[in-house]
Amino acid sequence: MIQVVAKALVKEEKIGEYKEVAYTLIEMTRKEKGCISYELFQDRDDPRIMTFIERWQDMESLEEHFQAEHFKSLVPQLKDLRQSSELNIYELVK
Amino acid sequence: MIQVVAKALVKEEKIGEYKEVAYTLIEMTRKEKGCISYELFQDRDDPRIMTFIERWQDMESLEEHFQAEHFKSLVPQLKDLRQSSELNIYELVK
Repeated sequence: MIQVVAKALVKEEKIGEYKEVAYTLIEMTRKEKGCISYELFQDRDDPRIMTFIERWQDMESLEEHFQAEHFKSLVPQLKDLRQSSELNIYELVK
Repeated sequence: MIQVVAKALVKEEKIGEYKEVAYTLIEMTRKEKGCISYELFQDRDDPRIMTFIERWQDMESLEEHFQAEHFKSLVPQLKDLRQSSELNIYELVK
């Protein structure tokens, strides 16, 4: 099992637009093979911090996700709406 | 539902010790009221990055967790073993 945390600092005036693009990405990604869960969260203290928390069956599924058409068309749109982002790919310790 | 991501950069030579303290914290925390899940992950590319991903029923449960005896005794021990850390408390968007 692979756990992904993709944290973004979204431009304040773009939060609504970011959510809309993200919703399409979520809907399409949840149908992908090997996607266990794919959820979007917003920080309670700073609404500009929006984070995808994702669970994938294995690295192969995640790599296929990165190659999916919806990923390649929507993620650049999200990128334009945020100031910065960080991605961590994790394995379960306990 | 409240989602917590507590990401730490652990001192390289302290990773083993960090895990041991974390295991005790995990075991005790999972018994707490309102704890839905409490898991420890390690970054695939940088093993110094160790992150707790936690799910709580509500803010009240999380605040009780911060007051628990095991939290107050073990978290300062973890703090001594890491270089830096960041905590985000999230609400589900979608």
